[in-house]
Amino acid sequence: MQKQDLLDVHDRIEPYIHNTPVLFSSAINKMVGAAVFFKCENFQRAGAYKIRGATNAMLQLTDVQRKNGVVTHSSGNFAQAVALAAKSLGITAHIVMPSSAPEIKKVGVLEYGGNIYVCDPTLAARQAMADQLGLETGATFLHPSNDENVIMGQGTAALELLKKVPDLKAIFCPVGGGGLIAGSSLAAKYFGNNCGVIGGEPFEADDAYRSLQSGKIEGNHTVNTIADGLKTTLGDKNFPIIRDNVSKIVRVTEDEIISAMRLVWERMKIIIEPSSAVTVAALLRDASDSPEVYRNKKVGIIISGGNVDLNNLPF
Amino acid sequence: MQKQDLLDVHDRIEPYIHNTPVLFSSAINKMVGAAVFFKCENFQRAGAYKIRGATNAMLQLTDVQRKNGVVTHSSGNFAQAVALAAKSLGITAHIVMPSSAPEIKKVGVLEYGGNIYVCDPTLAARQAMADQLGLETGATFLHPSNDENVIMGQGTAALELLKKVPDLKAIFCPVGGGGLIAGSSLAAKYFGNNCGVIGGEPFEADDAYRSLQSGKIEGNHTVNTIADGLKTTLGDKNFPIIRDNVSKIVRVTEDEIISAMRLVWERMKIIIEPSSAVTVAALLRDASDSPEVYRNKKVGIIISGGNVDLNNLPF
Repeated sequence: MQKQDLLDVHDRIEPYIHNTPVLFSSAINKMVGAAVFFKCENFQRAGAYKIRGATNAMLQLTDVQRKNGVVTHSSGNFAQAVALAAKSLGITAHIVMPSSAPEIKKVGVLEYGGNIYVCDPTLAARQAMADQLGLETGATFLHPSNDENVIMGQGTAALELLKKVPDLKAIFCPVGGGGLIAGSSLAAKYFGNNCGVIGGEPFEADDAYRSLQSGKIEGNHTVNTIADGLKTTLGDKNFPIIRDNVSKIVRVTEDEIISAMRLVWERMKIIIEPSSAVTVAALLRDASDSPEVYRNKKVGIIISGGNVDLNNLPF
Repeated sequence: MQKQDLLDVHDRIEPYIHNTPVLFSSAINKMVGAAVFFKCENFQRAGAYKIRGATNAMLQLTDVQRKNGVVTHSSGNFAQAVALAAKSLGITAHIVMPSSAPEIKKVGVLEYGGNIYVCDPTLAARQAMADQLGLETGATFLHPSNDENVIMGQGTAALELLKKVPDLKAIFCPVGGGGLIAGSSLAAKYFGNNCGVIGGEPFEADDAYRSLQSGKIEGNHTVNTIADGLKTTLGDKNFPIIRDNVSKIVRVTEDEIISAMRLVWERMKIIIEPSSAVTVAALLRDASDSPEVYRNKKVGIIISGGNVDLNNLPF
């Protein structure tokens, strides 16, 4: 996973993804005391950055593997991303979804032509059914975050951001399964100019914060968070990258998440999901704790997605 | 109001406005059967295109007029636009707002440093108080739509869109007081390549539709519409421009407005206000009625604003 590899990944997936816009808000700049650049992956295909990694992983498959299709399990954005990427590449996608997955996410997967297999809502049941499908069909298993090709693909969002705004002091990322922040930290290392990477995580699902403290992968004590994309834990492929390249992780409360979400909706007129609001909240908290660090600096934020159920808003 | 005038206006206001992004959605392109380009004035300063006209009008004032300030009456976006433009230019702004104006709009005006004067919620009371303030302070009255400088300012959004996408077959605009569509129709005439301008209007406030039918300015029979920005009527300065340059006006139901609003929020992840959803609904209706007209064509939409009360959503 070297510098040139990341450029190659970007070249490879470019025809299949949007180079999403970078937006800013004078009001938020004022609140933070810095120039904040929002990399809007909520405008990405299927509404989240996940398609980057999914597409890169699929483009690495051999002809035989492509013919046999791919299989994954996901309750959310990765399911839709795999279905859409597979459709673009003419690959069959088998998606295991827990019975608890929101109806709207299932509809998305079906619209993109994915085949849904419903299982019990436990990680063990999901993995078992995915393994079974892999055996039956010969489909290749795609992990949403703990996979080098996925990590590199997700890192291309930060790469595009740094190409547009080269002199960022830091990039803020949400931390769920760790694929996005691991990839972003590689992009910052190779293409930034002393650009730190800072994670945002809910107090209610702070496994990555504690993993950086203890030096080994920790589980979550609770997942009572509105940030439904951040309930997963780190993996052995992404944790070493995160440990070596991420400056720190800032934790935020549920109230901070909801008010950051509302702030962005109202001020920027863009729809971001709670998992993305976590990152905005983390920046607001860190800039409030250490204003001198941010003064007259440029900061990037990866807005990871915009898939929200409008019938179930927190405000 | 010639071709060069519009370019001059744009040069004049450029330092004070955002050149807003142009976005698109594959899903909406598919529904319409055309390539649709959304000019996102919801990302404009103060959340709507109105600042363009307000800034242009203020930049035309003499030194003495600037010293005496400006006065207007508005319950909505124009109030905030005038307050913010005045702040940028160091001009005092007196804003008459009806007692019925939403609290959030008043807060916006105050934040931008405008002086609010509350009056009874009738057009007569608003005009009377504005006239009175003009007499007392010497402030110049700014009309939100029936003013040549305002019309030209509003036309710069379509000008920017045509610079980015020169070969549009048509531009869709909402029609409220008529300033935006009049200005847009001048931009299309001077800078388009046979580019029509089509208005979107609620059935519940279809004064402009009927004005084009009868050939004279008509009032509204009802204003029972969620599109709060489109309840006003045309004026003697903008009506002749609209009559001569607008191809047609497409009326839409309240249900069509709400479902178009939801479509854009869900698919594009941007927040648009009901008055902007009217235009999207008008395009969907027209493309459904006459698909052959739009097939493989490019169409523009001016998304006029994104000021929505999140506590009071229609879904």
